[in-house]
Amino acid sequence: MPHPAATADPLIAAVNAGVEIYDLARTLRIGMPQSPNHPPYWHALPRRHGDMVRSDGGSAANDMISMGTHVGTHIDALAHVSQDGRLADGTDAREASVGGRFDRLGAHTIEPMVRPGVLLDVATALGSPQGLDGGYEITPANLEFTAEVQGTPIEAGDVVLIRSGWGRHFDDHATYVGTETGVPGVSEDGAVWLADHRPHAVGADTIAFERLKPGAGHGLLPAHRVLLVERGIYIIETMVLDDLAAAGVHRFTFVLSPLKLYGATGSPVRPLAVVSRG
Amino acid sequence: MPHPAATADPLIAAVNAGVEIYDLARTLRIGMPQSPNHPPYWHALPRRHGDMVRSDGGSAANDMISMGTHVGTHIDALAHVSQDGRLADGTDAREASVGGRFDRLGAHTIEPMVRPGVLLDVATALGSPQGLDGGYEITPANLEFTAEVQGTPIEAGDVVLIRSGWGRHFDDHATYVGTETGVPGVSEDGAVWLADHRPHAVGADTIAFERLKPGAGHGLLPAHRVLLVERGIYIIETMVLDDLAAAGVHRFTFVLSPLKLYGATGSPVRPLAVVSRG
Amino acid sequence: MPHPAATADPLIAAVNAGVEIYDLARTLRIGMPQSPNHPPYWHALPRRHGDMVRSDGGSAANDMISMGTHVGTHIDALAHVSQDGRLADGTDAREASVGGRFDRLGAHTIEPMVRPGVLLDVATALGSPQGLDGGYEITPANLEFTAEVQGTPIEAGDVVLIRSGWGRHFDDHATYVGTETGVPGVSEDGAVWLADHRPHAVGADTIAFERLKPGAGHGLLPAHRVLLVERGIYIIETMVLDDLAAAGVHRFTFVLSPLKLYGATGSPVRPLAVVSRG
Amino acid sequence: MPHPAATADPLIAAVNAGVEIYDLARTLRIGMPQSPNHPPYWHALPRRHGDMVRSDGGSAANDMISMGTHVGTHIDALAHVSQDGRLADGTDAREASVGGRFDRLGAHTIEPMVRPGVLLDVATALGSPQGLDGGYEITPANLEFTAEVQGTPIEAGDVVLIRSGWGRHFDDHATYVGTETGVPGVSEDGAVWLADHRPHAVGADTIAFERLKPGAGHGLLPAHRVLLVERGIYIIETMVLDDLAAAGVHRFTFVLSPLKLYGATGSPVRPLAVVSRG
Repeated sequence: MPHPAATADPLIAAVNAGVEIYDLARTLRIGMPQSPNHPPYWHALPRRHGDMVRSDGGSAANDMISMGTHVGTHIDALAHVSQDGRLADGTDAREASVGGRFDRLGAHTIEPMVRPGVLLDVATALGSPQGLDGGYEITPANLEFTAEVQGTPIEAGDVVLIRSGWGRHFDDHATYVGTETGVPGVSEDGAVWLADHRPHAVGADTIAFERLKPGAGHGLLPAHRVLLVERGIYIIETMVLDDLAAAGVHRFTFVLSPLKLYGATGSPVRPLAVVSRG
Repeated sequence: MPHPAATADPLIAAVNAGVEIYDLARTLRIGMPQSPNHPPYWHALPRRHGDMVRSDGGSAANDMISMGTHVGTHIDALAHVSQDGRLADGTDAREASVGGRFDRLGAHTIEPMVRPGVLLDVATALGSPQGLDGGYEITPANLEFTAEVQGTPIEAGDVVLIRSGWGRHFDDHATYVGTETGVPGVSEDGAVWLADHRPHAVGADTIAFERLKPGAGHGLLPAHRVLLVERGIYIIETMVLDDLAAAGVHRFTFVLSPLKLYGATGSPVRPLAVVSRG
Repeated sequence: MPHPAATADPLIAAVNAGVEIYDLARTLRIGMPQSPNHPPYWHALPRRHGDMVRSDGGSAANDMISMGTHVGTHIDALAHVSQDGRLADGTDAREASVGGRFDRLGAHTIEPMVRPGVLLDVATALGSPQGLDGGYEITPANLEFTAEVQGTPIEAGDVVLIRSGWGRHFDDHATYVGTETGVPGVSEDGAVWLADHRPHAVGADTIAFERLKPGAGHGLLPAHRVLLVERGIYIIETMVLDDLAAAGVHRFTFVLSPLKLYGATGSPVRPLAVVSRG
Repeated sequence: MPHPAATADPLIAAVNAGVEIYDLARTLRIGMPQSPNHPPYWHALPRRHGDMVRSDGGSAANDMISMGTHVGTHIDALAHVSQDGRLADGTDAREASVGGRFDRLGAHTIEPMVRPGVLLDVATALGSPQGLDGGYEITPANLEFTAEVQGTPIEAGDVVLIRSGWGRHFDDHATYVGTETGVPGVSEDGAVWLADHRPHAVGADTIAFERLKPGAGHGLLPAHRVLLVERGIYIIETMVLDDLAAAGVHRFTFVLSPLKLYGATGSPVRPLAVVSRG
């Protein structure tokens, strides 16, 4: 039985009518692939059941976590990247962190997202549903073509997710990180094309969102510059996009609620793609 | 202009029509109040802008985080609490963590939530909108009365949030933790009443969800036993519920997407209450 | 039987003849008293015995540690404090940490110490062997008097340890930290007196080495300025000096081997006072 | 001028006469080689100079550290390894850590060491001063031969350090860890030979002290079983022994003062070899 009041709120009505939730996040595990630039994810149980049992027979176990914020599926705050000493808002990048935190543009300033999302399944559109090659640069023409083939034009404010298919290498750490093989993705041109469509955020199924040339490492990241610094568009990395692609879901409600880590440069997240059930 | 395809999906249509998002999470800051049983939240910037500038003038700052999972606004996984050596699924609580993680009932098993939510603003219903007293036990009668006054009956599968008003003490750490003053909330009877309505999860604006008697500490937590162990209902703690209450929003779409921390006993979260705009 | 070759080395001969070792360090435990300015000590066992047993029946347990460096018994590197934007070597204090670490004057530059040590048991010399009052300022006259009474003049290069007796409050966290009560110790004048005797390092049984006025907190630390910045003398804090005092040992070989934490501002340590057995 | 009182204490006299200190520890740096079984060493500066300047122009910088205890140069506590469910003292290995720490046999129970030390420079004795091959097993005959050639018989209570020369690979992480190449060292037979000489502790310039076969990983560690579990002899790993060997110092006073990490399975350390000068 639906809530009597539910019909008054179209969102509740839609949720009550049934939704399918696609989980776009990797599981956070000790030893998962990541860039060596960041503190890796570690976890331990300081207290397990039986360590300290209360007088009534109850017991609580708990956790100790250590990690960077750019590990696992995560979002980059605008404070993450600077260019020529300036942040996205034009302020001095070095002064911005005096105090040991970014009071402006830090992760705590990322508003939660409940907004239209589009999957650009470039790998499938280009005839390689299993995934593009390492180092392949996704061009504006590729993006344009994918949006057309799918029938999913991008509107201002959308969250645009780009599937390269590279996620299939997640369990092969060296390949997923791509130091030798490179990683497919957009580069500067693709980033400009995306930015010109004024998305709220963009994401990909790779560790650095953008194309990495074989052997080049993370030394130069022009798409980060374009998106984070020049256009103020958030970047979401290490996403799981294969289930969404397999289901042929190209348009959905995108949900992302980053941890409000005061002054941090990013946050681990568990983004969702939600669709009404048929 | 709405998306052409959007109308096909009632959820996207509802989102496109405009939604209001209430952020129910505390900001994670060094020094925020928490129980001494858990590793506190700490943050530092290993790299600031200017520390290492790339050849093209770009620079990336990053983070190092250390924390427990039961700090700040967070959700308890079912693995968090055991009773008489058993977890919610009846398995041996001590054996369940062999390997250093809870393969079953860990935080990674908490499905993301996009479902109806109800705020029981008990403080306001009882005539103390600014908040109940330390140690006050919210009774089944109080809960029943609040639901009636608000016109918000609870349906199976709802997420039920209980506002005690204790959140006003958040910046006064000793009081918020409540070791001496106690903290208002439901106790065993209220937990049973809640559980009998079969909610998917429950939450509160206090550090331990349930009533703490003055001077009693966290020694005995009967509501945790009822909810987590006996009924398999998640508990969300340290929520921000005052904005929601001030706006008179008692029914909403509740969104929560915990980090997929493999084998952990809980996760920091940033839950949301979303409503269609008038 | 002594080693045949041992007699050739007077140090080995002295050690073989028998030494008594006084442990001058606090045990590192979760929850021990410390300043809230530093990440607290936390420990967990990621792996316990039985979590993963090898084919031959062997098993290894291990640890996960999170901490600041100025917690527990520790030594301050010269990089720890700056005055008017300068470090001890006159370099720009802000530039010195560009890169996220102090390449110069960091903890890794503290040479291990095996050198003469002197205990100035001021508390006993002043007739309060159980300990001085909170906020008491140990004056140059007090230091002079103690050295005389004990018959232990200070030589250049010595390590000088000052016992105030405040260590007796270690288990009473609020008092040991001394925010309200204050903490006894030298202040600027005493620091100058010490520095004029050209010790290699100084230490005390208190959390901040120097006198803290009741209610004043750690806001102003003139002795730190004098010793670390102006004179380049290391400071060791939160030492255990009561056993040494009770045994009447005022002169000894001081041993301290800080962790070589590259670029850090200090290191947890376990200093020793070693004496030949009678 | 020597201290007047110094001559009364042979140890102080020896120290005053001049000592040479050999530092046997690796610098702790982000990214140094280590086993993936342990949380890696990470460091950040939460506060740098200039972040918060006091009214008198003073400023303090500080640190945040995250690490395992078996990283860098470290000592294994007896609690680290169990065999067939038993620790060195015969107690149940699993029960020993109930409470989340090893109350018995933990790192806090390792007494500081100031005692005779012997370097067995096996690499040089066997004609390969630059170092033995990966996977080479140092046999009892090799140890016997080295002690004889050097003229350094082992006495009960000595600390015995074994130099394989593998330390030369420290900056080549993959080789130092030796997963593919193997690592030279003693195995079960050598461990028994050592144990039969009743040393207080043993150490080596390798990551796991004992011989690792190429491709075998850390799956089976018979020398750890013999030393830690069967004989109660501490193991020190990842030591720097090349300077000592180059100087031809085979006998010295060994100094090691582990952090008193309550209940931990090991401790990072900075061991020293100290000799009287000329």
